Amino acid sequence: MNRQWLLKSRPQGQVTEAHFERREAPLPSPKDGELVVRTLYVSFDPAMRGWMNEDPGYMPPIPLGSVMGASGVGEVIESRHQDYQIGDIVVGMLGWQEYAVIGEGGPFAAQKIDPEHPLPSYLGILGGTGLTAYFGLLDVGKPTPGDTVVVSGAAGATGSVAAQIAKIKQCRVIGIAGGAAKCRCLTDDLGLDAAIDYKSENVGARLGELCPNGINVYFDNVGGSTLEAAIDHMALHGRIPLCGMISGYNAEQSPPGPRNLFLLIAKRIRMEGFLIPDYFDRFEVGRRELSEWLAAGQLKALEDVQEGFDNIPSTFLRLFQGANLGKQVLKLAEPSATEGA
Amino acid sequence: MNRQWLLKSRPQGQVTEAHFERREAPLPSPKDGELVVRTLYVSFDPAMRGWMNEDPGYMPPIPLGSVMGASGVGEVIESRHQDYQIGDIVVGMLGWQEYAVIGEGGPFAAQKIDPEHPLPSYLGILGGTGLTAYFGLLDVGKPTPGDTVVVSGAAGATGSVAAQIAKIKQCRVIGIAGGAAKCRCLTDDLGLDAAIDYKSENVGARLGELCPNGINVYFDNVGGSTLEAAIDHMALHGRIPLCGMISGYNAEQSPPGPRNLFLLIAKRIRMEGFLIPDYFDRFEVGRRELSEWLAAGQLKALEDVQEGFDNIPSTFLRLFQGANLGKQVLKLAEPSATEGA
Repeated sequence: MNRQWLLKSRPQGQVTEAHFERREAPLPSPKDGELVVRTLYVSFDPAMRGWMNEDPGYMPPIPLGSVMGASGVGEVIESRHQDYQIGDIVVGMLGWQEYAVIGEGGPFAAQKIDPEHPLPSYLGILGGTGLTAYFGLLDVGKPTPGDTVVVSGAAGATGSVAAQIAKIKQCRVIGIAGGAAKCRCLTDDLGLDAAIDYKSENVGARLGELCPNGINVYFDNVGGSTLEAAIDHMALHGRIPLCGMISGYNAEQSPPGPRNLFLLIAKRIRMEGFLIPDYFDRFEVGRRELSEWLAAGQLKALEDVQEGFDNIPSTFLRLFQGANLGKQVLKLAEPSATEGA
Repeated sequence: MNRQWLLKSRPQGQVTEAHFERREAPLPSPKDGELVVRTLYVSFDPAMRGWMNEDPGYMPPIPLGSVMGASGVGEVIESRHQDYQIGDIVVGMLGWQEYAVIGEGGPFAAQKIDPEHPLPSYLGILGGTGLTAYFGLLDVGKPTPGDTVVVSGAAGATGSVAAQIAKIKQCRVIGIAGGAAKCRCLTDDLGLDAAIDYKSENVGARLGELCPNGINVYFDNVGGSTLEAAIDHMALHGRIPLCGMISGYNAEQSPPGPRNLFLLIAKRIRMEGFLIPDYFDRFEVGRRELSEWLAAGQLKALEDVQEGFDNIPSTFLRLFQGANLGKQVLKLAEPSATEGA
């Protein structure tokens, strides 16, 4: 049998476990050109909250009663596709289910990998979140050595990579995160220059103290009042890559935007949204550089690994509770093959 | 005697005539290296509202009790500077006064012009507002032929030029302005493809009807709810040059920003503020092209010319009442020289 979590209803505001429902379905059998993949790790990203809405986002909404979408790492257990063999490890849209049928036209797709790093890396630092940090920081933020870079959601999957890349690029880097433990991790484990605990500190006041010459690049994962505080402290000609706005994802009505947008004119600031699919033709370049930094110890993979099929919905909610430290994944199974496990 | 209007008090919110005060001062006499300029035309720009505030803007605040700052066209009536002669026509920061002393280190400065076009053009289409439209639209907005370009404040000084340049660049251009007369001017006189009257129409709904494929460039002069409506209707990879936010200039507290900033991510939109001084080294290039378009009849100078020293403050208020059609200027005197008058 194939255990699955379906999208049962669309949240109005806060997402809860009640929006999902378990189902057991017969183990699928592949048609010509299809494969069956056993899910090993499930990936959780804040953007998945948007897929649950009926509103048009940048992904089509997940139909009610369908398997909840999610990236994952899996192992091919049956193949009717000439390019894939049993035992191959793949990364792709596997969904919240133990087994996924991957085919040409369906909603799920996968790419074969040759794992040199631990499997969760392919969902985080070498996956969509790592590439998002890489292209968002470098292409949109355009930091130069000596710049002051501020990253919100800095203990999250994308933020922790963006902050570390900024350090590699010889910037002064300040991370914003919630709680003393996360902030300690940012400075002590990841080597950031400073951290601001938004749960116990006044973010605007601390940015003013820590960035006397202003912020050159503000890599934003959260939006809301943190974005407003950062705009107040931007330097002339600063750049704001907009990566995410998690502070508003569960709001019934979007909160008002920053009141200080006029400063974008006065300080000639560029604020620019980006999405990783636009960089598709440069994924390999980014992945290679991230992989080299990871192998050289210049980048650390911050990963939060939960376990168990039953815990899939509650693990998703950790993102919005700020409970995850780094990339949130859940382990469903061990690979049969021993390489890369 | 030299009649002047001084900044008497800083407005909290709405600016009124009571914030200014008349003074008569002795006619100044120039020191070595200085000139005395008789003001012929005074220029009025929404940005001057910001100069009245104590808050740091992009210009130092005008000290209380000082002559209100403003650009103007004037005529040299006395010169102790070798590069200037009596009768020369100059453009520069002359202030709200009949005579200005222009010197090296003072707050007022001027540049000699050789007028080929009517004098108000040098404050509007060939002055700061024209150059603002030119560099803001072309460098920040980067329109390509066939793009849909929307301009707010389109019947204003900068907007009317930006909209016409977008037409020259073979874009489909929609202007937003207040009132039927302004809208008729935009379509009938300036040749825009459509106009939206924000006073009598629902801007968001009309943008949806008029821009079925989305807005590629939104040149924003007003901010507020118009900006929010435009963001709703931006096309993928759209650009928003932020030129001004007149809707908020007289607010006691800045109004909340747009609630839909998340769309900047979903649609990969670049929103970028700019100020014309940054383009200083390309002013001549811009002025030459604007001058050629003007001479060829491809650009029309939309000008609103008031008269009389006593009417200076009330003419300034016209900008915030939406009373001006095109560039707001006030004529103080005829040039003694007949050329270019």
